[in-house]
Amino acid sequence: MNALGKHLLLELKDCNKESLNDLSFLKSTLLAAASEAGATVLGESFHQFNPQGVSGVVVITESHLFIHTWPEYGYAAADIFTCGNSVQPEKAAEFLIEKLGCKNHSVQEIPRGILDTQ
Amino acid sequence: MNALGKHLLLELKDCNKESLNDLSFLKSTLLAAASEAGATVLGESFHQFNPQGVSGVVVITESHLFIHTWPEYGYAAADIFTCGNSVQPEKAAEFLIEKLGCKNHSVQEIPRGILDTQ
Repeated sequence: MNALGKHLLLELKDCNKESLNDLSFLKSTLLAAASEAGATVLGESFHQFNPQGVSGVVVITESHLFIHTWPEYGYAAADIFTCGNSVQPEKAAEFLIEKLGCKNHSVQEIPRGILDTQ
Repeated sequence: MNALGKHLLLELKDCNKESLNDLSFLKSTLLAAASEAGATVLGESFHQFNPQGVSGVVVITESHLFIHTWPEYGYAAADIFTCGNSVQPEKAAEFLIEKLGCKNHSVQEIPRGILDTQ
């Protein structure tokens, strides 16, 4: 099966709650995850919510990474969307899981752009 | 089933190829889609690729929308991730499908953050 993009959906439960509410930590971690994957960063946008929670997106040449956190539940949703064969999104996933102290995770891989013309 | 977030994955085939390579059009369309859903925009990041293709993310209070386009195939991958009951992501999806002149689409809904504690 030949797809234009590979999309990893990470369900990250039982994470370190303090880390999930730390914008600075999450930004540096997501940027480092992009680097782990071998991706080239084009831009980022992070936002802290009140009373808690962070949303962050890193746009890469090869697509994007994002994270949305719910510190009150120790939960984060993260996506790693890449295209091309020069990047290794699985490395970014492993890195995120470790850095967030996640003790209960699942990763779903969804191919994107399966075209008849390919 | 009670989930923290609703994630719509749109596979958009047979779209208008010119629209898929028009950063300005795509930015205004994604921002308008967020508005259609009743979402509050926090930030955006769009990038034009050479020789073609655009990646764009709109971060909203309720999570995010993104689009990645492959004009050469008339294809775009778009995601609409929302949380809370105040927004209607399906309206954003319908809006995108129409504005891109998409003649062949599929929408997959994935619940995010199904927690035991909810």
